[in-house]
Amino acid sequence: MNRYKVTFLPEQKEVEADEGVTLFEAAEKAGVYLNSLCGGEGVCGKCRVQVTKGNIKADKHSIVFFSKEDIQHGYVLACQTRVKDSLEVVIPPESRLEEEQIMAESHLEEQKTWRETRPITYSKPDWISLHKRAYDPASLFEPLVSKVYLELPGPTIDDNIPDTGRIVRELRKKLEYSSYEIPLPRLRDLSMKLRRHGWKITATVARHNNMGRILQIEAGNTADRNYGVAIDVGTTTVVVQLVHLKTGQVMGVEGSHNLQARYGEDVLSRIAFACGKGSRDILQQAVVENINTLIQTLAQEKGIDVEDITSIVAAGNTTMSHLLLNLTPCSIRDDPYVSTVDLYPQVLANEVSININSQGVLQVMPSVASYIGGDTVAGVLACGLADKPETACLIDVGTNGEIVIGNNEWMLSCSASAGPAFEGGDTRCGMRATRGAIQKVEINNGRAVYETIGKAKPRGICGSGLIDLLYELARNGIIDIDGKFHPSLQDKRITTENGELEYIVAFPEETETGQMLVIAQTDIDNIIRSKGAMFAAIKSLIDYAGLTFDQLSRIYVAGGFGSYLNIEKAVGIGLLPDVARERIEFVGNSSLMGARMALVSFYAFEKAISISQSITNIDLSHFAPFGDEYMAALYLPHIDQELLFPSVNY
Amino acid sequence: MNRYKVTFLPEQKEVEADEGVTLFEAAEKAGVYLNSLCGGEGVCGKCRVQVTKGNIKADKHSIVFFSKEDIQHGYVLACQTRVKDSLEVVIPPESRLEEEQIMAESHLEEQKTWRETRPITYSKPDWISLHKRAYDPASLFEPLVSKVYLELPGPTIDDNIPDTGRIVRELRKKLEYSSYEIPLPRLRDLSMKLRRHGWKITATVARHNNMGRILQIEAGNTADRNYGVAIDVGTTTVVVQLVHLKTGQVMGVEGSHNLQARYGEDVLSRIAFACGKGSRDILQQAVVENINTLIQTLAQEKGIDVEDITSIVAAGNTTMSHLLLNLTPCSIRDDPYVSTVDLYPQVLANEVSININSQGVLQVMPSVASYIGGDTVAGVLACGLADKPETACLIDVGTNGEIVIGNNEWMLSCSASAGPAFEGGDTRCGMRATRGAIQKVEINNGRAVYETIGKAKPRGICGSGLIDLLYELARNGIIDIDGKFHPSLQDKRITTENGELEYIVAFPEETETGQMLVIAQTDIDNIIRSKGAMFAAIKSLIDYAGLTFDQLSRIYVAGGFGSYLNIEKAVGIGLLPDVARERIEFVGNSSLMGARMALVSFYAFEKAISISQSITNIDLSHFAPFGDEYMAALYLPHIDQELLFPSVNY
Repeated sequence: MNRYKVTFLPEQKEVEADEGVTLFEAAEKAGVYLNSLCGGEGVCGKCRVQVTKGNIKADKHSIVFFSKEDIQHGYVLACQTRVKDSLEVVIPPESRLEEEQIMAESHLEEQKTWRETRPITYSKPDWISLHKRAYDPASLFEPLVSKVYLELPGPTIDDNIPDTGRIVRELRKKLEYSSYEIPLPRLRDLSMKLRRHGWKITATVARHNNMGRILQIEAGNTADRNYGVAIDVGTTTVVVQLVHLKTGQVMGVEGSHNLQARYGEDVLSRIAFACGKGSRDILQQAVVENINTLIQTLAQEKGIDVEDITSIVAAGNTTMSHLLLNLTPCSIRDDPYVSTVDLYPQVLANEVSININSQGVLQVMPSVASYIGGDTVAGVLACGLADKPETACLIDVGTNGEIVIGNNEWMLSCSASAGPAFEGGDTRCGMRATRGAIQKVEINNGRAVYETIGKAKPRGICGSGLIDLLYELARNGIIDIDGKFHPSLQDKRITTENGELEYIVAFPEETETGQMLVIAQTDIDNIIRSKGAMFAAIKSLIDYAGLTFDQLSRIYVAGGFGSYLNIEKAVGIGLLPDVARERIEFVGNSSLMGARMALVSFYAFEKAISISQSITNIDLSHFAPFGDEYMAALYLPHIDQELLFPSVNY
Repeated sequence: MNRYKVTFLPEQKEVEADEGVTLFEAAEKAGVYLNSLCGGEGVCGKCRVQVTKGNIKADKHSIVFFSKEDIQHGYVLACQTRVKDSLEVVIPPESRLEEEQIMAESHLEEQKTWRETRPITYSKPDWISLHKRAYDPASLFEPLVSKVYLELPGPTIDDNIPDTGRIVRELRKKLEYSSYEIPLPRLRDLSMKLRRHGWKITATVARHNNMGRILQIEAGNTADRNYGVAIDVGTTTVVVQLVHLKTGQVMGVEGSHNLQARYGEDVLSRIAFACGKGSRDILQQAVVENINTLIQTLAQEKGIDVEDITSIVAAGNTTMSHLLLNLTPCSIRDDPYVSTVDLYPQVLANEVSININSQGVLQVMPSVASYIGGDTVAGVLACGLADKPETACLIDVGTNGEIVIGNNEWMLSCSASAGPAFEGGDTRCGMRATRGAIQKVEINNGRAVYETIGKAKPRGICGSGLIDLLYELARNGIIDIDGKFHPSLQDKRITTENGELEYIVAFPEETETGQMLVIAQTDIDNIIRSKGAMFAAIKSLIDYAGLTFDQLSRIYVAGGFGSYLNIEKAVGIGLLPDVARERIEFVGNSSLMGARMALVSFYAFEKAISISQSITNIDLSHFAPFGDEYMAALYLPHIDQELLFPSVNY
């Protein structure tokens, strides 16, 4: 078999590739990760690359993604192009799987302990006040894994109980467990360790099945060196937060795109990969690579040893949770949508190849159903939905949208497949909420003003930008109530490409790529379908519960919108219900916050278990009115504007 | 380095040995196991071998173990003789570590289930009647590991709980656990397994920390194929019993000498080996070799697959328990005598290299103190001592003797180092209770009649034979109350060797080895010291409790006496207290029986935990009156015969 040299620019990364492998695979081998929504099927057009040297064979099917000029300049889809020559390949910015920091916009107050300050600070809600109602935060702080320094009295003839008894006797004075277990490998040399270190030791104790599980015995006092990690394992992004478990202090947060995205954008295509042509192992290794890299980065930044990280709590949807633990996800996608497990066992992090302390534990947040996962449970925990008598609602907007309605007596949930429009998919210039994404748009008198994340040159439009844009297009009469471009409108920003009308948000000279950023008619149609599915789901669940929107004391909105969501405009396009605006709170990444609550408080983790077992999930695919609600929601803001969106007035 | 061929006879086993290794080590390499009481120190004389070809260098120190004739015939101590030539070595029968079946004398009623019949049938006590008082045996039968066949209803949209929930929901109807855990590796392919096998599966469930731990999921109904193993891990012998866990039926029992004996006869020399020149690993591997061989043998005999053995309960003294799990035993031997652990964790058998089902569990019985181990706890469990209001006593006669006195409200224990005389050590012709051992002796009018185990030619004298012999020598006036040979006595069986008087039990022409079997003055002195230590311990504990022997409703006697112990004679020499004989019961291997009770009933195991935590151990080395009691007991039967042994009348 022939092998060829492939060089990727601008990094100048070289790799030897066997003849016949795709450019996508060769790039991966070189450590250059490309976008892919379709898992390499050649149908999403996200892995465009430019071949600048060497011969390639054009793929006829992917021609729809390129203009004549593009083809002349050597643009191809990396996943459909096979190596049969030495090549030089340029990766344009928009095709690159972005590894930069994301979701770190929360303004961390690093100097205060968890007891003193809000668990995680977003711009809007005052979390501590929320939780004061439910818990006494002082007693809440009981990490899943704690380190306890012990100065044991040495044995005498009148007090010659076994070594383990001596440790447990002291631990009982400091922790609340009545029974303890020590895994066999830790027991083996315990006797020598205790005597060598003069009976002054630090025990690392995990809560495990309501017992204390002694993970580690160290010499001397190391109780200050105890760190934990909360992880939000999203389908799109993975966010890791480092927490000092002695104080509860958040030390830092890092995020990256889920490397599984190479094998499919949404959970269904990941399951298809895991259960079909690919394997679970590959997906598991991908997300573990994310996690290990992020943890390593945080540890280096903060100057700590990963050996001192003793625990992880991860929240993810049911598929992500299954893939993280390498559990079969196959039955999740098939009616009647059954997962393997909802209460995930506590495991050693190294059982799934996550690099922290070799005895450190990983706890995945419990899930409710196949499409209501631990991320939603974490969100409910974070919002305190299950703690208050007032009925409230949590809406997590995403490719799979989740909605929970309820209070401290009952909770209902449902999920809706909304498509990836709000996470950067399904639209020509859509992108995730990272640097260079347009997140705010305002249009006035033919002038479009936008703001990008990181104040960078625009590279695309993220979910909150698309919401703004849709609202502004409607408000300015550029599109109609059905989302269609007004046929008679004259605007220099309206143009036609491939027979389709589109609106130019940024001209080529403004953008990082030099290509103009547009929103086309099909993009608008896709966004309307997404928001329509979300709203129809919310409305269906409210109706199922026999409530009206007015009866919701609060609506918490979570989602991958970065730090920004314009609530007025989200209501304006009919994504969120039209209630008094002060009742709607954008809570950002509530999944991560819930994971951290469970990390620093096993009371919170037990609350999460109780939440997961208390929520009744309604399967909308078997709920007849949902179809009509969806059809009625495919308008801006809704076909029943007078009744449901009386305050919306473009 | 030179290497020489060493051939061991009569097996003709050849081995290449490096120059300088001992014959003991070379024999071991050849798979020929020799006796050793001292762990290779050259001081016990038990590893005599005859070098018939090749040059060796005589070891001056070991000359005391040989007659002039012996030396001329090439006899040496294997542990003190190093290879420096090619050799031919004959292993005499008495130096061979006997591997034959032992302790299998209990007459197993294999056809009845545990519910119907006695847990284990010895000749004397009616166990079922004992236990009826304490438990309802029908409810008692709840094996530590059970297999449950489940026909699960398949999921529907109205019943789409996760797979684990579906299993647990059915298990809750059949087992008493409210919560269950499934280790991660079992979860990974559970989903596919359930569907592939049409939701008809057998779950193997272990009781673990009061939860059900699902060890294994098999296709179809395998509930009949569930076996367990009870093990008595003795310092001297290892006995394994195979039990059908569906029915409780005992299927078979096998025993062998503890292969650790090569590295030291008693627990102190084993600890010295483990913590000094040798290693724990070697001792652990040795006893595991015993166990694996015995299990394999039993499985083959009964035609079962070791993969269907799902659980083991092992009882042993504290040192044996530590060595089985490869825990540091070092502090056990040093004042204040502290062990690593008393409540041993449930582990996977394969964590300690025991070959049963790869997920099968091993539970070691809990111990009380460094010298009151799980074997004693198992014995207390088996005797029902802790279940009855009447005060009773358990005496386990051995190298380390253990005594427990008490009832269902309180229990006291003590231990006494009695020396190995009753287990075949410390006397010139002593041997363990195996084939060829003299176990019964009667002397009348200068005629000695004996009976050997297996009706074989005599090879030595075991504990019960020594008790009989001592009694008979005293009764016939051959020895005095102080155990000394009557100086003026004329008897053709009394002879002098190395200036010491000895009594000939069997003449050379009667024995298997062709050497006469004698009991010498120092042997008698050793036995008296052993029985004196045992009795002094019993008396001290009774006094400590403020009781008299008459207040004991029952005295249970356990020990490695094989199937025979003459209680009259054991009282006669002052080993056992002089109470009404019907109150004394010889119970044989109560350790094995207790282990089996815990195997087939976790209620019994929980009882064992409660026993281990309820017994107060008295350290006789810090109990002043013990010394005087010991001195007073160095007579036949006792210096206070009138008061303490009124019924004894030679």
